[in-house]
Amino acid sequence: MTIDQHNDVEAIRQLKARYFRLMDTRQWDLLSECFTADISALYEGAPRASEDLPRDIKIEGRDALVDGIRTLMTGAKSIHQGYMPEIELTGPTTARGVWSMFDDVRLPTCNFKGWGHYHEDYVKEDGRWKMKKIHLTRLHTEEEWL
Amino acid sequence: MTIDQHNDVEAIRQLKARYFRLMDTRQWDLLSECFTADISALYEGAPRASEDLPRDIKIEGRDALVDGIRTLMTGAKSIHQGYMPEIELTGPTTARGVWSMFDDVRLPTCNFKGWGHYHEDYVKEDGRWKMKKIHLTRLHTEEEWL
Amino acid sequence: MTIDQHNDVEAIRQLKARYFRLMDTRQWDLLSECFTADISALYEGAPRASEDLPRDIKIEGRDALVDGIRTLMTGAKSIHQGYMPEIELTGPTTARGVWSMFDDVRLPTCNFKGWGHYHEDYVKEDGRWKMKKIHLTRLHTEEEWL
Repeated sequence: MTIDQHNDVEAIRQLKARYFRLMDTRQWDLLSECFTADISALYEGAPRASEDLPRDIKIEGRDALVDGIRTLMTGAKSIHQGYMPEIELTGPTTARGVWSMFDDVRLPTCNFKGWGHYHEDYVKEDGRWKMKKIHLTRLHTEEEWL
Repeated sequence: MTIDQHNDVEAIRQLKARYFRLMDTRQWDLLSECFTADISALYEGAPRASEDLPRDIKIEGRDALVDGIRTLMTGAKSIHQGYMPEIELTGPTTARGVWSMFDDVRLPTCNFKGWGHYHEDYVKEDGRWKMKKIHLTRLHTEEEWL
Repeated sequence: MTIDQHNDVEAIRQLKARYFRLMDTRQWDLLSECFTADISALYEGAPRASEDLPRDIKIEGRDALVDGIRTLMTGAKSIHQGYMPEIELTGPTTARGVWSMFDDVRLPTCNFKGWGHYHEDYVKEDGRWKMKKIHLTRLHTEEEWL
């Protein structure tokens, strides 16, 4: 990689760090800036408030995604962690990455814990890297209904 | 960033890695070298040996900080982890950073677990980066009294 | 470090990320490519299927190592995570590193959790970094026999 490419990889690492931190500290406006307007997200084995809800969640678009996260997190505590990024630049303004992850979401109705991997696409818009596609796969999840 | 700045960011990442590893493996003299003499540390929701002790700990100065950590860790097992550093260089010899974190401290009187973020200032002294300010905020803590 | 050295450090970080991900997703052929043919591995406090088995496992050679991991993981769920790499280049084609780690291995007979550090040697063969020596030390392990 060139020095510019190292800068891109580090910017993407910090983008994902902000995604987790802004979600867990409920900073929705700043979280929104992590995504492209047309983001596509598929979370397998997502936290859910009721056993009647589907295990997998698919959301299209930045506003719908932030709204969905905000709604889920209302009244909840959450901890999200990412590890060991494998970032690959695929062009001057495109990249993809894999992150190992853990989430611990304590909803009023369910204590949820999950482990898995994020598979993501990133694009650089006006000099800033954003998340364009998120696909969360799971190694294991646990639901303790309250 | 320039290549020198990448070197600085990597040095700061490894500084924090040593902080955690030297604490958990009880290498107090080497741990001391991670701090400036005038370090200021504020740990919110810190592990504590008794419910009578305050939840937050503020310590000024390298010797007092290492003494405080050593005293707390006597007879304990500890695991400290940091994730997803957001390091920002603010000058040739100054930087700040945020780390997601987890600590698991098993004191004789209490099993403690915590999740949160370190907000830190770093300075470069004689070519080596050191921690000058530590502020630990919490997402969640758990105390199991024995 | 030079830009080439930064490339080497990043390649080693991604090597270890693949090691964990390929193990947890059971991709044995790709996992095998992470190791030199003569890899030497010593896992202290390893997961084990029976209390009669030794706590520490020493394995020499790539094929034996992959076979050993595959056998242990049959019928199990596993989660492996690495944090805070301290990578040090020791020559143009040699390096060593320390990683903080956590593993959660759910065998049919035992739920195992462990925390510790990987101390590793790496070599660059035909332009690709590989793991040549693994030594896992432990801060703490837990075995829940089923």
